[in-house]
Amino acid sequence: MRVQPSPRGRKSGTVLIMIDPRVASGLRDLLPAAAIPRERMLTRFREVFARYGFVPIETPHIERLEVLTGKGAGSEEVLRQIFDVTNKGGEEGKLALRFDLTVPLARFVAKNVDALGLPFKRYAIGSVFRGERPAKGRFREFTQCDFDIVGTTGAVADAETVQVIHDALDAAGAPEFRIAINNRKVLDGLLEVMGVSGKLGPVLRSLDKLVKAGREKVRDELTRGEAPLLSPEQADRVLAFAEKGRGGVEVLDALDAEVVAHPKAAEGIANLREVLDLLKAGDVPEGRVVIDLGLARGLDYYTGVVFETTVVGWEGFGSVASGGRYDNLASLFTNRQIPGVGASIGLDRLLALMQEAGALTATAATAPVLVARFPGVPAAVSVKLASRLRKAGIGAEVFPDEGPLGKQLGFGSNRGHRFGLIVGPDEAAGEVFNLRDLATRQEIKGIPWSDLEEKVREALDGDGGRGAG
Amino acid sequence: MRVQPSPRGRKSGTVLIMIDPRVASGLRDLLPAAAIPRERMLTRFREVFARYGFVPIETPHIERLEVLTGKGAGSEEVLRQIFDVTNKGGEEGKLALRFDLTVPLARFVAKNVDALGLPFKRYAIGSVFRGERPAKGRFREFTQCDFDIVGTTGAVADAETVQVIHDALDAAGAPEFRIAINNRKVLDGLLEVMGVSGKLGPVLRSLDKLVKAGREKVRDELTRGEAPLLSPEQADRVLAFAEKGRGGVEVLDALDAEVVAHPKAAEGIANLREVLDLLKAGDVPEGRVVIDLGLARGLDYYTGVVFETTVVGWEGFGSVASGGRYDNLASLFTNRQIPGVGASIGLDRLLALMQEAGALTATAATAPVLVARFPGVPAAVSVKLASRLRKAGIGAEVFPDEGPLGKQLGFGSNRGHRFGLIVGPDEAAGEVFNLRDLATRQEIKGIPWSDLEEKVREALDGDGGRGAG
Repeated sequence: MRVQPSPRGRKSGTVLIMIDPRVASGLRDLLPAAAIPRERMLTRFREVFARYGFVPIETPHIERLEVLTGKGAGSEEVLRQIFDVTNKGGEEGKLALRFDLTVPLARFVAKNVDALGLPFKRYAIGSVFRGERPAKGRFREFTQCDFDIVGTTGAVADAETVQVIHDALDAAGAPEFRIAINNRKVLDGLLEVMGVSGKLGPVLRSLDKLVKAGREKVRDELTRGEAPLLSPEQADRVLAFAEKGRGGVEVLDALDAEVVAHPKAAEGIANLREVLDLLKAGDVPEGRVVIDLGLARGLDYYTGVVFETTVVGWEGFGSVASGGRYDNLASLFTNRQIPGVGASIGLDRLLALMQEAGALTATAATAPVLVARFPGVPAAVSVKLASRLRKAGIGAEVFPDEGPLGKQLGFGSNRGHRFGLIVGPDEAAGEVFNLRDLATRQEIKGIPWSDLEEKVREALDGDGGRGAG
Repeated sequence: MRVQPSPRGRKSGTVLIMIDPRVASGLRDLLPAAAIPRERMLTRFREVFARYGFVPIETPHIERLEVLTGKGAGSEEVLRQIFDVTNKGGEEGKLALRFDLTVPLARFVAKNVDALGLPFKRYAIGSVFRGERPAKGRFREFTQCDFDIVGTTGAVADAETVQVIHDALDAAGAPEFRIAINNRKVLDGLLEVMGVSGKLGPVLRSLDKLVKAGREKVRDELTRGEAPLLSPEQADRVLAFAEKGRGGVEVLDALDAEVVAHPKAAEGIANLREVLDLLKAGDVPEGRVVIDLGLARGLDYYTGVVFETTVVGWEGFGSVASGGRYDNLASLFTNRQIPGVGASIGLDRLLALMQEAGALTATAATAPVLVARFPGVPAAVSVKLASRLRKAGIGAEVFPDEGPLGKQLGFGSNRGHRFGLIVGPDEAAGEVFNLRDLATRQEIKGIPWSDLEEKVREALDGDGGRGAG
């Protein structure tokens, strides 16, 4: 409901004091040319999530502070960045803005698990807030697109997470991409085979830098200091494992017999084999998925399979979709152990990449047809034709005011409308219209009103999907 | 990106301290059965907005406090309810959560008007925040769905706002509704004819109570006190005007000659006639629109046409979509005068009404088909069949774990899936499947895999759209 009075000028004597219409630093407005492809991408994501049976849930943007700061809920850095929320009415406890969608999911599941039943598959798309130091490409409010399958430990759920990443990126029109998958248990097994236990975390954090920092730097980090993580021989073996561990199922076939025989590694290997099998059954093209035994990805959190997705040729942009399996989602809130697997699509990063790669259609219009308003022709004519197009599923915008035709068509062309529909007095008398391609300026003249839907659809189909629509 | 470590149990010695997973008072979680119809409704709204050429924009949830508290930006009550936002990093000014989408639109247009060009048609769907005293049905975070046409004064835009309300409610499956329209200039004219000037605001605020408080109370309010707003005769004339002023175009034909002759009233009458004409051209069914000359609706703000929408038989629920024309959107932020017209759909109210009216399909599932996992049959079989259904555009969820078939089908039935797809060892050997209607428990047995998409679609089409899908 609109219940607010209008913003009006703030009068001080006779001087009108204006308020600066800027947004606070680190925040941003999205203009139509950015918001339109974003909205379309989210629509595709929702369609894919639903097709797999994921259901939407909503949690508030504001959570009780205690929920967000529970030990382990977020890294210290993230906790420092929390936005506190207060209002004059006072609260029964401190409040804050959520910094991700995972902590709210954990709270939600703990609270509602009996009503929901398990397994439970949810998606959530929403704004999260972090008071980071403002920097280029870093925003204090950004969107997360998460989906999770909780209450199951099966490989079907692991594979399905990859299927959803695949279908969502595909539906979004992402350029060629690779989904890297790993299971941390394999490296865990190798380390135990080498007699190195309890060091998986630090070793993985070093390996995570392999692509960016290079082999020598990582080797140095693994072996330096008074109490080195690994001996030089161990480091070489781990590095060879990570470097050779990228490819198809042959990567698993080539593993050392002693690693394969280790129970934990065997579990990880069996899981990866099963996931690959299921992805084949699920019709995910083989080239899209690659095993990467060195993939480290957030291992403080994840306990089994992990995923990371990069666009081919744009690896430096980082991952556009990642996630993995966890043992215990909601231990802050419940004694019940709830395992699951999930991932998050980096909407903003993917959009930025596609923008740079020229893979987004540039338009500031949602309706392909602009119906002009010719002086002397009743507005009802334009409104009627536009209404018929909409009923036929074709977006049509009526220019709201009469005015020079050239100005209206220039407006339509700038906005990214594809066709201008024109009815001047002669056309109105003859019950015909002209259809002008706003990019090529070619115009088909004298189309009878009776052929409206058919001819406009033909023109739209014939123009290769350029612009709005 | 998911970069957070997992929420884990907070250990204090050997005692595990759990955090209460509740939400703060006045806030709420939406479970799937509520979030699914909500998400569908929003999808329909977005489709309708886009079909008319409205474009999405995004503004941050957090605004600079100054923007929100500018004189006239919100009523005193709303300003008292503002949630302040702070973070440890410090800010270059105070921040707060937006309390509506109109003030952010005004700021956005003032800031970007040159880049946007006028006319500009935007829609925005998002959460707004008000620290109201928690009460049944009142929430501190709720969703607004706004659309506005700015930069035009034409009646085409006025009518289009009504068309969009109509099409959006129609697409949302709302029960039979009426859109009441008025133009404040008509009553303004009547008051001037009676020699009562400058009292339009208070008179309209009284008239606004006519339906709820009744004629006597309103008459008393208009005529009581030492300096009554109106004389008893004037009050009777105004009340008769409001009471008789409800209906079709004949209401305008029946107006007193002296009102019709008044320039301001004449302007309002001409606008209403033009809007009615355009709505006919736009194919809005006549019965859906009614003139209501007593409709007061937020007149501190609106300066021309105003709208309010009620569901027939549910008038007590209040308006589910309302708005109107304003002269000057962004005067807090710019000297440029920007007129416009817009409306807001009361998503939460409409959903609550439809829920009570039994007009929502109750389901907690988004995919109509649940593919069971039969012990002894490879998971790949279920994954493959589900994948084929999805490619054919049919939502299919694979139960992630093997287990007793009865349990899986019971789960599917509880969730609101429509069909269970079952492949036991015999069916797998024969490359057939059984399809079970989870409501009627009827089962079609032995359908060949080759007929999968066709037969499942037949079953779904045959079942009248019950449940998920």
